[in-house]
Amino acid sequence: MIPVDDEGFIDPDILAAYVGKDTVLVSIQLVNHEIGTIQSIKNLVEVVKEINPNVIFHTDAADAYGRVPIDVKDLNVDLLTLNSHKILGPKGVGALYVRSGIDVERIIHGQLSTESLWPGVENVLAIAGFKKAIELAFDNFNTNVEKMTQLRDELLNGIRDNIPHTLINGPIGKLRSPDNVNVSFLYVEGEAVTVELSLRGIYVSSGSACTSRYLELSHVLLAIGRKREEAHGSILFKVTRYHTKEDIEYTIEQLREAIDRLRRISAIKPDKEGER
Amino acid sequence: MIPVDDEGFIDPDILAAYVGKDTVLVSIQLVNHEIGTIQSIKNLVEVVKEINPNVIFHTDAADAYGRVPIDVKDLNVDLLTLNSHKILGPKGVGALYVRSGIDVERIIHGQLSTESLWPGVENVLAIAGFKKAIELAFDNFNTNVEKMTQLRDELLNGIRDNIPHTLINGPIGKLRSPDNVNVSFLYVEGEAVTVELSLRGIYVSSGSACTSRYLELSHVLLAIGRKREEAHGSILFKVTRYHTKEDIEYTIEQLREAIDRLRRISAIKPDKEGER
Repeated sequence: MIPVDDEGFIDPDILAAYVGKDTVLVSIQLVNHEIGTIQSIKNLVEVVKEINPNVIFHTDAADAYGRVPIDVKDLNVDLLTLNSHKILGPKGVGALYVRSGIDVERIIHGQLSTESLWPGVENVLAIAGFKKAIELAFDNFNTNVEKMTQLRDELLNGIRDNIPHTLINGPIGKLRSPDNVNVSFLYVEGEAVTVELSLRGIYVSSGSACTSRYLELSHVLLAIGRKREEAHGSILFKVTRYHTKEDIEYTIEQLREAIDRLRRISAIKPDKEGER
Repeated sequence: MIPVDDEGFIDPDILAAYVGKDTVLVSIQLVNHEIGTIQSIKNLVEVVKEINPNVIFHTDAADAYGRVPIDVKDLNVDLLTLNSHKILGPKGVGALYVRSGIDVERIIHGQLSTESLWPGVENVLAIAGFKKAIELAFDNFNTNVEKMTQLRDELLNGIRDNIPHTLINGPIGKLRSPDNVNVSFLYVEGEAVTVELSLRGIYVSSGSACTSRYLELSHVLLAIGRKREEAHGSILFKVTRYHTKEDIEYTIEQLREAIDRLRRISAIKPDKEGER
């Protein structure tokens, strides 16, 4: 486990200190799923390979795909993973890029496994849906990214300007994924915010989306130095190319009301008004 | 590997000779995927458990589901597998029955794996489709089975009465799966038959469907004692509740023409006319 700074970035010098002659694999996300940090993977691969050229470098690019340009040759990664539902395709399918010359061992054996890494009958519907989602995301990649970036900043600024006691999690600007808005609303519970917003037609996640069903605190937010009470009220919004300026305005307005309502009934209160 | 008789059945006495105090797992298909043999699993479970009650008994019921009544308690199996596409649902999803008290170890670890045997985001579309396919198959189970049985026998009889030099693979009657028709057409290549029929709108498989892309001989047909040349010309037809009497009549007529055409251009000829 490599420590990160307060925006989720890995310092190349710190990474270098963790890599040695016995290192087998390094795996670093291209874009963090929760706080949208765009890691400088190319640079990190260089650092690792200079110390030990035999290290296999894997990057999880699921949250980068369709938002950040990806060139596996330029990044010089050995393995790269993607999935379909993160680019609005069907759930249940993903993709693994394997650089020529890298051997990947099968995990599951069985019929048809002589042909691929994965045995059994192909998940045809999901694969076809994934293909269509890729086409839609990349048909107008630059326009899509520009639109998402604008909506993202409108939402981030709207929250900052309209709702007191908020903390933006992750970096601001070019090094944040164009679709990611992650905010801690102090003095409220994240779960309560998700419920309140869902009643208003806005669907967001709280904590680490993948572990939210167990009500655990986000390990990502704790890693960037958030306190427990700050991590508790964190909400992840995602903007897509299908959202509109009106959606963002509606979200800010509903969010303002929802947070206000929840804070009035909350047991935890700010020590002084306007403290943050 | 337990040997089978010439219809694909396992003799309980032979099975007993293979099971001992060091046996960990026995896995036997409820219905064979290629030749439709309905194995007497309940009886075989009894034989195995009497010799060694600690043996885990698994049955692959994918080809039985929706055709043969299955009661896991009555069969007394520990594990039972199903899939969706075998009951006309979407490809890419299946089900594993695990008897209470049986521990199954995860093969793949990862996020969300605290909740299930399988990590990651659920294949929602395919699961929903599988559920719908189950409802459709079981809404009128008895009627569906009766209809398939009738269509199967019409196809089997039609082939036997109209096309010379054929061998029916697997049992006849109640111990054959209601949807299975597997026939070896002598003096033709199975692959050529699949192509010829596909041009006529009839889609069938040759050899072991799962290995047909490698043009291997069916290990099932070799196991029931078919010679190489008999296995080569084997074709698997499946009837469904959606097929009609007219479909069967059309298939028999087209098949008669196709086999006749292929035999005229084939290099291998019967030694004497009407030999079989």
